[in-house]
Amino acid sequence: MKRAVEKLKFIDLQDLEDIAVGAALLGTGGGGDPHIGKLMAIQSIKNKGPVRLIDVEEIPDEALVVPVAMMGAPTVLVEKIPSGREIFNAFESLQSFLGKEVYAVLPIEAGGVNSMIPIMVAAEKGVPLVDVDGMGRAFPELQMVTYHLFGIPATPMVLADEKGNSILLKTVNNFWTESLARNATVVMGGSVMIAIYPMTGRQVKEAGIRDIVSYSAQIGKVIRRAHKNGDDPIEAIINATGGIPLFKGKISDVVRKTSGGFVRGEAYLDGIDEFKGEKLEINFQNENLIARRNGKIVATVPDLICVVDAHTGIPITTEGLRYGQRAFVLGLPCDEKWRSEKGIQTVGPRYFGYDVEYVPVEELNCL
Amino acid sequence: MKRAVEKLKFIDLQDLEDIAVGAALLGTGGGGDPHIGKLMAIQSIKNKGPVRLIDVEEIPDEALVVPVAMMGAPTVLVEKIPSGREIFNAFESLQSFLGKEVYAVLPIEAGGVNSMIPIMVAAEKGVPLVDVDGMGRAFPELQMVTYHLFGIPATPMVLADEKGNSILLKTVNNFWTESLARNATVVMGGSVMIAIYPMTGRQVKEAGIRDIVSYSAQIGKVIRRAHKNGDDPIEAIINATGGIPLFKGKISDVVRKTSGGFVRGEAYLDGIDEFKGEKLEINFQNENLIARRNGKIVATVPDLICVVDAHTGIPITTEGLRYGQRAFVLGLPCDEKWRSEKGIQTVGPRYFGYDVEYVPVEELNCL
Repeated sequence: MKRAVEKLKFIDLQDLEDIAVGAALLGTGGGGDPHIGKLMAIQSIKNKGPVRLIDVEEIPDEALVVPVAMMGAPTVLVEKIPSGREIFNAFESLQSFLGKEVYAVLPIEAGGVNSMIPIMVAAEKGVPLVDVDGMGRAFPELQMVTYHLFGIPATPMVLADEKGNSILLKTVNNFWTESLARNATVVMGGSVMIAIYPMTGRQVKEAGIRDIVSYSAQIGKVIRRAHKNGDDPIEAIINATGGIPLFKGKISDVVRKTSGGFVRGEAYLDGIDEFKGEKLEINFQNENLIARRNGKIVATVPDLICVVDAHTGIPITTEGLRYGQRAFVLGLPCDEKWRSEKGIQTVGPRYFGYDVEYVPVEELNCL
Repeated sequence: MKRAVEKLKFIDLQDLEDIAVGAALLGTGGGGDPHIGKLMAIQSIKNKGPVRLIDVEEIPDEALVVPVAMMGAPTVLVEKIPSGREIFNAFESLQSFLGKEVYAVLPIEAGGVNSMIPIMVAAEKGVPLVDVDGMGRAFPELQMVTYHLFGIPATPMVLADEKGNSILLKTVNNFWTESLARNATVVMGGSVMIAIYPMTGRQVKEAGIRDIVSYSAQIGKVIRRAHKNGDDPIEAIINATGGIPLFKGKISDVVRKTSGGFVRGEAYLDGIDEFKGEKLEINFQNENLIARRNGKIVATVPDLICVVDAHTGIPITTEGLRYGQRAFVLGLPCDEKWRSEKGIQTVGPRYFGYDVEYVPVEELNCL
């Protein structure tokens, strides 16, 4: 899937900016607005210094590692800014329940807010961040992680809200976790902070998607350098990711509905430049799920459908889609782990209710 | 409120039958069908022997006591029989979280299922049952206990379902507990088992309603004896409780709806015998809330509105109300703790959405 990744060892303020941008691209529209997450992480790095980023191989096999994240509709988070304490409440409650020190934290997914929160927690708690996640992108539901494919339970997990309420879940499977946690998130106001999928070093080495933080930083960096050097940022992204150009167009309509803890909807684009006269339709549920060009599918989950500003290359989240924006849409092949039978069952188009067979994006686009 | 109570020291199988009947009367229509709860408790007493019933004064001030109960719509429980394990899962998870042995268990309310479950847990866990509850009757929401009036938090609490899922809640107030737990109950299938309001001996001595188990047994016993001796059971109930006769009639209609984790509805009665030509309407939400005779209110929460079979005196739960039944309706004054300002705010008619001032049942009926 990925190009060669230059591994980061520490995350400073510049890296933070790069990661926020790069992870928002891999977030395929979801994972939350990077701006809010970044503000929180900047403060933590200013207070505590750069965060140490370690490779999965550096984790002792028996050590406890914990992904920390925001859960809920990103549209809600824009208006319901976290107090800043709830993620520590979630982290500490889970650590205390497990009765074992957390060796390191990690992102659950690549995405604006959810790439930033673990950096903030790592800084404040003085633990390293692991260069790994469970998606290699963003997905809307809790069982949609490669950890699930390897039979790792999501619970015990803790949800905490900005008012001070917290919930510790223990469930019989990861679908019950999703159902109970999603419902609680709605009651708690639409977004909460979570500590979930507590794992051993051994488990995350087997089931995680590696180098995702460094890869996010690298994507952000090529966009930043293109701006600085006056190069085309879209070309820079394509070079850095091997992304397949799917469309360039003007957003003509966005339909968006926040319900059941998700934001669902469609975006419609009218082609410009080399796509003039053509149409693109994107369906999303927090993340972009399916892209149809002139009625024909050109990419589906689990492959990545990334929408960026056609001029600046800056990723546009699903809650940031606006009428009139000029956007470039890229398709990126997902991690191989998702292309297994259980992977496609878990995050393929049929799971999301589309009667569509999964075909890899590179085949759909005849590469 | 109560007549003199003869205190029980142990609960054997005969007492269990009496408690189930008496508590169902005090349950004012709610608290669940006594039959299902009784089947579970009978087995436990057969296996483990009679349960020791202790007075609140016997609890050391610093000892930990825990109410255990069923939560949810009683109509659901009739069709979704507990596995039997979930209440122990709730009990053990809470004990383990608190890191302290539970000295004794207690009922949260008087009611069919919820008077039986703590007896079962006491038998199986080899701990005493305390002769106290937090209502002196049954109520539908978690903050509707005298413990709440004394500022005691409902959390940490644990909810457990028959599938093996469990939830540990820690909240900032008892309304959040109700909201989050109610929602989880719905997602978990409509009824769950809970361990809640962990308290010290000192707290329960101050805030509890005493002798409720013995009182329930006493009511059940007078009904049983009336049957045996061929006496009028209604008269026996009135003598034992000081209950005020509100109506005798035939149920002409019942409207019932299970939603949001509650069963809500109305029952309509046409008078017979001394009430011939008159009408009674009862509104309920799990429990009977308001009784109107010929359009005039004759009793409201927090006073007890008890519906019993006109012939046998056996209490009829709100899910047991059927067209054509001949019923006798009694009003019982509630415990004095409920008649405080905070008590009426918490469980008075206005809280349940009725624009009605609370007037004690004995005043409404000019005694």
